[in-house]
Amino acid sequence: MPVDDTVKVVVLGTGQMGSGMIKLLLQKSGIDLVGVYGRRASRVGLDVGQVLGLDTALGVQVSHDLSAVLAHTKPHVVLQATCSRVSEAVDEITTALQHRANVISIAEEMAYPAYKAPQSAAVLHQLALDHQVTVVGTGINPGFVLDLLVIALTGVCWRVDAIRAQRVNDLSPYGPAVLTSQGVGLTPAAFHQGLQDGTVVGHYGFPESISMIARALGWHIDRIVQHREPIISRVTRATPFVTIEPGRTAGCLHTAVAYRHDEPVITLIHPQQVHPHLEHIATGDVIDIHGEPPVHFASSPEIPGGLGTIALAVNMIPPVMNAAPGLTSMAALPVPAAIMGDVRMLLHARPPQ
Amino acid sequence: MPVDDTVKVVVLGTGQMGSGMIKLLLQKSGIDLVGVYGRRASRVGLDVGQVLGLDTALGVQVSHDLSAVLAHTKPHVVLQATCSRVSEAVDEITTALQHRANVISIAEEMAYPAYKAPQSAAVLHQLALDHQVTVVGTGINPGFVLDLLVIALTGVCWRVDAIRAQRVNDLSPYGPAVLTSQGVGLTPAAFHQGLQDGTVVGHYGFPESISMIARALGWHIDRIVQHREPIISRVTRATPFVTIEPGRTAGCLHTAVAYRHDEPVITLIHPQQVHPHLEHIATGDVIDIHGEPPVHFASSPEIPGGLGTIALAVNMIPPVMNAAPGLTSMAALPVPAAIMGDVRMLLHARPPQ
Repeated sequence: MPVDDTVKVVVLGTGQMGSGMIKLLLQKSGIDLVGVYGRRASRVGLDVGQVLGLDTALGVQVSHDLSAVLAHTKPHVVLQATCSRVSEAVDEITTALQHRANVISIAEEMAYPAYKAPQSAAVLHQLALDHQVTVVGTGINPGFVLDLLVIALTGVCWRVDAIRAQRVNDLSPYGPAVLTSQGVGLTPAAFHQGLQDGTVVGHYGFPESISMIARALGWHIDRIVQHREPIISRVTRATPFVTIEPGRTAGCLHTAVAYRHDEPVITLIHPQQVHPHLEHIATGDVIDIHGEPPVHFASSPEIPGGLGTIALAVNMIPPVMNAAPGLTSMAALPVPAAIMGDVRMLLHARPPQ
Repeated sequence: MPVDDTVKVVVLGTGQMGSGMIKLLLQKSGIDLVGVYGRRASRVGLDVGQVLGLDTALGVQVSHDLSAVLAHTKPHVVLQATCSRVSEAVDEITTALQHRANVISIAEEMAYPAYKAPQSAAVLHQLALDHQVTVVGTGINPGFVLDLLVIALTGVCWRVDAIRAQRVNDLSPYGPAVLTSQGVGLTPAAFHQGLQDGTVVGHYGFPESISMIARALGWHIDRIVQHREPIISRVTRATPFVTIEPGRTAGCLHTAVAYRHDEPVITLIHPQQVHPHLEHIATGDVIDIHGEPPVHFASSPEIPGGLGTIALAVNMIPPVMNAAPGLTSMAALPVPAAIMGDVRMLLHARPPQ
């Protein structure tokens, strides 16, 4: 593509993530937001500025007809923020690919879609090849902290024996949908019932992160064992959406262990709860590579999930536009960087120096 | 390339780094060490096993004739561990490219050769394109901790205002050449004299790291200011190679600040000294991104420089073999991963899932 064209982007989704992407895109040079698609019919026809609560109209209306938006705007890139599972994501991605748009999805399972949906992944790969565009899934987790960063840090190792990575975050900024999915506020019995009936899910993405790591290192994983348990609060914890009395569930401690020849080689730990500081629990991301040399890297506090996921989706635009066609993964692309200049300066067909 | 071929590698250099690469290559599946080139005539004709102090011969002799080695062995990849500067590296790299070998160099300036030697970088890029192979510079620093990791962490940011990254390491494992280059053991006056006459150099690679970061983010840097000062010991510090009395130099505190519109936007800090723990200084790598959101990531202790540089050179083999031809940089390739399976499983022409 000629680098003097602005990069045209369509955002799918007008929730917290989609709205954040729109706001961030508006701050970038060389990018034009040309369309917004929403699944909710209630927002159709509204100006995006109105949906975002801005003072000014943006001249882009929310549409409910994805094909029409894509046919009309011919975007270079589609950012998908409408769902979590491959099965929910695949129709929109297919439509985008058929319109020759690259796709960056924050659907958690799209970080490594072949784990849950190998057939859909193969179809998307072929479709992306046919239309000479690229598809990738990204996000803070899966997509960055517990997989891409882990992989990069193994790059300094002669040998890796085992990996242990943990992300301790604070759910307090989140709304009812996320809190419900983590069982926040439930009695321990209701939490376990929720696991049974599928209303309490914990974290989406451990098998995807594990698959990404294992593939990058060349490990064959025999099985993945996941475990979810309630984090029982000893104190009262309150957010605008929920008040948790002592003895109730403040969140979900979700772990996944990947075994290779019956050895636990990858352990991912993700306790998500509201106000962990009320019980003197510090938030943060911790990566430990056991091997030669050992590596210990940690952040405090944790990289914020919402802001970070929005940023990654936007910042992956140059690597995705520069990539070879096909379905790919964060581990197979250059790392994202904050776009601080004109995005067109970051597009390829130019030597790296 | 057919993935059933083993990957043939030639190592340039039989010093600490080159020897380490040879040892690590011998541990990997799907890789054959087919040749070793040494600049020192004294080692020519020796079996590599003998040079490494192994019990067994490897059947590969150290050669002093690079063209002959390459013509005879036709390697897929050459690992260069013979020098620090582009001007010292370019002849060997040119020879390797002319023999259609990909090149991974740990020469510090090769991390971003266009900074010091734009003309050589352009020539190498064209030569790599002509021969359809790839050249990259890597290493712990420059190449990883103070540039690639920094860039990756900005990927979660909406906006970056400034970057501050620090690497505090321990020089105690190093020999006389490194200690001399850092002014270890000198009086403060002799240290400053050494800076004048070029015998004390501090760290190689700050402008290269800064250039890599700035290019990835799309920042134009107006100027880079470097500063070197002696770290004066208050206690006696001894290694097998040097004993430092109080008042003498334990190492070099080297900093670099990159300015953009007169604002300091990238600050890199690298105090290198022997036995910092004797003055209760903890070693480690610390990355701070000031922006939205802010990011703080830190390792303790620091990722070991020697082991890490050797690992990176070997672990970059798959990304380099999978890359588009040309001169590239760590920021423009997928991240390295520890090679834990057969390297051929990591080579291209396969979808990422």
